[in-house]
Amino acid sequence: MPKTIKKIAVLTSGGDSPGMNAAIRSVVRTCAYHNIECVGVYRGYEGLIEGDFKQMDARSVKGIINKGGTILKSARSNGFRTEEGRKKAFQNLVDAEVDALVVVGGDGSFTGALIFNQEFGFPVMGIPGTIDNDIFGTSHTLGFDTALNTVVEAIDKIRDTASSHNRLFFIEVMGRDVGHIALNAGIAGGAEEILIPEEDLGLERLVDSLNRSRKSGKSSSIVIVAEGDKIGKNIFELKDYVDENMEGYDVRVSVLGHMQRGGAPSCFDRVLASRMGVKAVESLLNGQTNYMVGLLNGKMELTPLDNAIKGKTKINLELLRVSDIMST
Amino acid sequence: MPKTIKKIAVLTSGGDSPGMNAAIRSVVRTCAYHNIECVGVYRGYEGLIEGDFKQMDARSVKGIINKGGTILKSARSNGFRTEEGRKKAFQNLVDAEVDALVVVGGDGSFTGALIFNQEFGFPVMGIPGTIDNDIFGTSHTLGFDTALNTVVEAIDKIRDTASSHNRLFFIEVMGRDVGHIALNAGIAGGAEEILIPEEDLGLERLVDSLNRSRKSGKSSSIVIVAEGDKIGKNIFELKDYVDENMEGYDVRVSVLGHMQRGGAPSCFDRVLASRMGVKAVESLLNGQTNYMVGLLNGKMELTPLDNAIKGKTKINLELLRVSDIMST
Amino acid sequence: MPKTIKKIAVLTSGGDSPGMNAAIRSVVRTCAYHNIECVGVYRGYEGLIEGDFKQMDARSVKGIINKGGTILKSARSNGFRTEEGRKKAFQNLVDAEVDALVVVGGDGSFTGALIFNQEFGFPVMGIPGTIDNDIFGTSHTLGFDTALNTVVEAIDKIRDTASSHNRLFFIEVMGRDVGHIALNAGIAGGAEEILIPEEDLGLERLVDSLNRSRKSGKSSSIVIVAEGDKIGKNIFELKDYVDENMEGYDVRVSVLGHMQRGGAPSCFDRVLASRMGVKAVESLLNGQTNYMVGLLNGKMELTPLDNAIKGKTKINLELLRVSDIMST
Amino acid sequence: MPKTIKKIAVLTSGGDSPGMNAAIRSVVRTCAYHNIECVGVYRGYEGLIEGDFKQMDARSVKGIINKGGTILKSARSNGFRTEEGRKKAFQNLVDAEVDALVVVGGDGSFTGALIFNQEFGFPVMGIPGTIDNDIFGTSHTLGFDTALNTVVEAIDKIRDTASSHNRLFFIEVMGRDVGHIALNAGIAGGAEEILIPEEDLGLERLVDSLNRSRKSGKSSSIVIVAEGDKIGKNIFELKDYVDENMEGYDVRVSVLGHMQRGGAPSCFDRVLASRMGVKAVESLLNGQTNYMVGLLNGKMELTPLDNAIKGKTKINLELLRVSDIMST
Repeated sequence: MPKTIKKIAVLTSGGDSPGMNAAIRSVVRTCAYHNIECVGVYRGYEGLIEGDFKQMDARSVKGIINKGGTILKSARSNGFRTEEGRKKAFQNLVDAEVDALVVVGGDGSFTGALIFNQEFGFPVMGIPGTIDNDIFGTSHTLGFDTALNTVVEAIDKIRDTASSHNRLFFIEVMGRDVGHIALNAGIAGGAEEILIPEEDLGLERLVDSLNRSRKSGKSSSIVIVAEGDKIGKNIFELKDYVDENMEGYDVRVSVLGHMQRGGAPSCFDRVLASRMGVKAVESLLNGQTNYMVGLLNGKMELTPLDNAIKGKTKINLELLRVSDIMST
Repeated sequence: MPKTIKKIAVLTSGGDSPGMNAAIRSVVRTCAYHNIECVGVYRGYEGLIEGDFKQMDARSVKGIINKGGTILKSARSNGFRTEEGRKKAFQNLVDAEVDALVVVGGDGSFTGALIFNQEFGFPVMGIPGTIDNDIFGTSHTLGFDTALNTVVEAIDKIRDTASSHNRLFFIEVMGRDVGHIALNAGIAGGAEEILIPEEDLGLERLVDSLNRSRKSGKSSSIVIVAEGDKIGKNIFELKDYVDENMEGYDVRVSVLGHMQRGGAPSCFDRVLASRMGVKAVESLLNGQTNYMVGLLNGKMELTPLDNAIKGKTKINLELLRVSDIMST
Repeated sequence: MPKTIKKIAVLTSGGDSPGMNAAIRSVVRTCAYHNIECVGVYRGYEGLIEGDFKQMDARSVKGIINKGGTILKSARSNGFRTEEGRKKAFQNLVDAEVDALVVVGGDGSFTGALIFNQEFGFPVMGIPGTIDNDIFGTSHTLGFDTALNTVVEAIDKIRDTASSHNRLFFIEVMGRDVGHIALNAGIAGGAEEILIPEEDLGLERLVDSLNRSRKSGKSSSIVIVAEGDKIGKNIFELKDYVDENMEGYDVRVSVLGHMQRGGAPSCFDRVLASRMGVKAVESLLNGQTNYMVGLLNGKMELTPLDNAIKGKTKINLELLRVSDIMST
Repeated sequence: MPKTIKKIAVLTSGGDSPGMNAAIRSVVRTCAYHNIECVGVYRGYEGLIEGDFKQMDARSVKGIINKGGTILKSARSNGFRTEEGRKKAFQNLVDAEVDALVVVGGDGSFTGALIFNQEFGFPVMGIPGTIDNDIFGTSHTLGFDTALNTVVEAIDKIRDTASSHNRLFFIEVMGRDVGHIALNAGIAGGAEEILIPEEDLGLERLVDSLNRSRKSGKSSSIVIVAEGDKIGKNIFELKDYVDENMEGYDVRVSVLGHMQRGGAPSCFDRVLASRMGVKAVESLLNGQTNYMVGLLNGKMELTPLDNAIKGKTKINLELLRVSDIMST
């Protein structure tokens, strides 16, 4: 029979994403609601090893639901990759009388949580926080919706200047392994082409498509490129290629970069974070462990951490088709 | 066997919502993609009766995906409530060689479409465009997500001044019959209480809850009130009641009003509109009629218009509970 | 010879405005730069009377430059209107070894500061923080620029729905005694008419003007109304009047309300606040007192508090004319 | 005696900036107000040579005051650098019975206008439209204020992630020859250092300053770098230098790029554009030519185009000092 849980720790780990603060707030307040204690751990697993903890109550998380970033900070931890580091972390949790751990982060962070549970039997629960939406077991990761809006607002601005000058813009968005941001923001931004890691479009097809769109009367064009697109060229090489192989276009490049990670979370991400925090804490209180909470068909569901890590999210092929039709 | 569809008309009807333009664009471009013609109808059913049509091609909808409102305009039509009006409308469509009609609007607009189909056998397809999210057969109506973000940004601003002055704010948001906006925006805005049409909280409970939240150390509070909340008082009467029954609060009222209907659509609404337009046109091309396209479990699905109109959307009880926990 | 200043207190008073936090930050950091101490006073003059002080250093004001509201909070103080209250306040400052006081607020707050100086000879310096821009001695008060952008964004949203439905909107903005917000936001929002406290337009002229604008082909119209407009009717009475006296318009009202006070300050207001804080502290260090810092012709200038309070800002008549021409 | 002006042409030239559409609208409506005709010229001087004109009336510019970019488009014109090109342009204007030309653009565009006037005696008037604020004779160019807000919002987002990870960010903003954007946005974004073309800070001083700021307890830092900063390294070389010469920082680079040129203009830029358009048209009607309209000490003033081109704007040294104090 699992130990009764009286104190829960929460940490954020990996790349930050908008909504992490809302998730921390939800974990803390759900603990308060159930009259159990809650401690925040600073700088992810690094703070777990160093014992950098802070007691938190409902008022500690006041005014953070609309803040980007994470008040608990995040960091990569080499120490947690060692058994020695994890032992220290475990001892710190034991010393602080913590009974369970909520980890907000991506699959790297979940892998750490899973190993930690396997070694020490310590109850862990994951909340998927990353803008990339690349976690199996949830239709939306925390921060994905906000990042999409950030990207689309940037595309809107760039389109103003693109269409004033009849220019072709290549815009790089985040997504090393998955094209979710590129595909959704590309459709919403009215992009003529979207290059994603999942599909090898081929340079000739890109040039063909741009020429066709030009002939159809478009005076400016926007191509969204995910960081990890399959053409195997970086965005500046793409520009050079098109400069050499297309006439009449004034080609420009814009790399949106880290601003995609920040900003006040959207309504969607704040509600999602609030729901996930409740589900994570209450699942731990119900004796469940080694799960990730996720949004599936509009409901909060648990997925074994193991599956969440190993499973792959697939690009929505319908969206690819919609993108093709929209750039008619 | 249904007639082959060679020309489709599209109109927007009822209260406008962000994403309607993106839906028009999608309908027009999907027609272009399938090499069929498309006409826009101005001012909803009114323009149908007056024959206020405009031929549209892929370029006609350039640069509108990010615009609020509807370039086709919207209007209420008393004429379309009469058989005579609908006959004129039908004749105009026949004269213009239009084979099917896409209606972007809410349940009133769908009722009109259904009657029109029943009378003349004219193929119709609905796209749910309203910020209220009160249509059965889709988890999200077009504009709902954008309106949520608009409301939450306004709450964030009001909270700045509320917390600087230790004030209690009643904020009225749209939602005459349903509390979807109030509930989601309330959670995301960190509201202490949310009053919705579906639940009768009772004034005593409201006052109790505010007193409790004050004792717990909160110096300012925000209460979100849907237009149609069940307490049966308007927001100014609520203020008066609390002024008289609670001590120490400086109570203010803010009615967000029509700005909730406008603004550039969010990424979510633009993608949704693009998907819905494709689905609507292709369903008509497949010989389907009298359906509404909707988002169900992340996929485009058809719901008979009849069900869409009569069915009721229910408030997500999980969200009510999350709201309670968050205002701990 | 004035006493050497070794410790400065800062408070915010009156209605809050975006940029107050940036001003607090600037005062605190300028003190740190000059190696003098700084204390924050909570809740304006009320906190001065209660001795609600907090020692602040450069790190205390981290991460607040982009936050609306005021971390020091604001309040009305009846106590400070009494000699007894002011005596307590003075004693608290003496006990805390504070040598000078920076007051961020409007003319009411400055009046309090001036009386306080006259009674106790205590050095005071004003920073004009109010969205209304109604302080003599500065072309821009802190928060005015941000409020203008907030109002204009709201008008943009309302115009989306106004032009989709051919509606006439009356939009009320802040400004009880001055029309600066109405006039600037009205021009920027493309309003057809702007009603301000300084000018009595007369209802007939309003109706004439709307009729004319309609005949010129405008299908929707927006009228901006300052709270204190001279027609002497509130915005709902205006609506009724037009409903009865104009045909064919569907008239709606929107009262923007308190959201105008909140939000992240604009770049302009953050820079202005930073400059004003530096000027305020360094002026005190130079032995100056009873002044308000202000922006005049692009430069930081001092105006005697007495003049700042009694002087009147005038509406820019050129803007009125521009507004007329733009609504051609 | 100058010819009576009955028709005015307007064009936008050079890099686009937010507010250009508002300026076009103002020129067109001021013409309508004075009952003179107005034609828009597409793609700047290129359209002047090709006779790409469009008659515009008050309704032609409906709904553009809040749009970024320029509906008249902009382009570089090699043709206009030749006498032959300019002759064609002149002939087109004569054929279209245009009596005067308003040019919205930067100093390159003004140089073209001045030569054109010198060769053909054609009345010209300049409106300074560029985000760089590098034109003599106006305290603010059109688009500068909007660009500042765009940059500051991006910095705010990047700071979220910077402070969550204790990172050092170099952020490149526009400004090849002038540091106005960098300096203002740097102060408003709370940057620790600002590198501008006007000042050679020296790499050692940068490293010293960052080390100092770290010791003072800052865990993350943001350095704003104008494109043309004097250190003579591009932003990626800066990163490499700091990577090698500073310990413990995780250094990242973000180049904001072309999004700085787009977006809905701020209230300030819309009002400025409206005022400038009125002044430009009415000055031409008064027989004035070869001037640029500008904002000086809050008023609309004329500056000879010659001076506007040759004069240099200087960086505000007070702001440099404020920046130093704020990064205490």
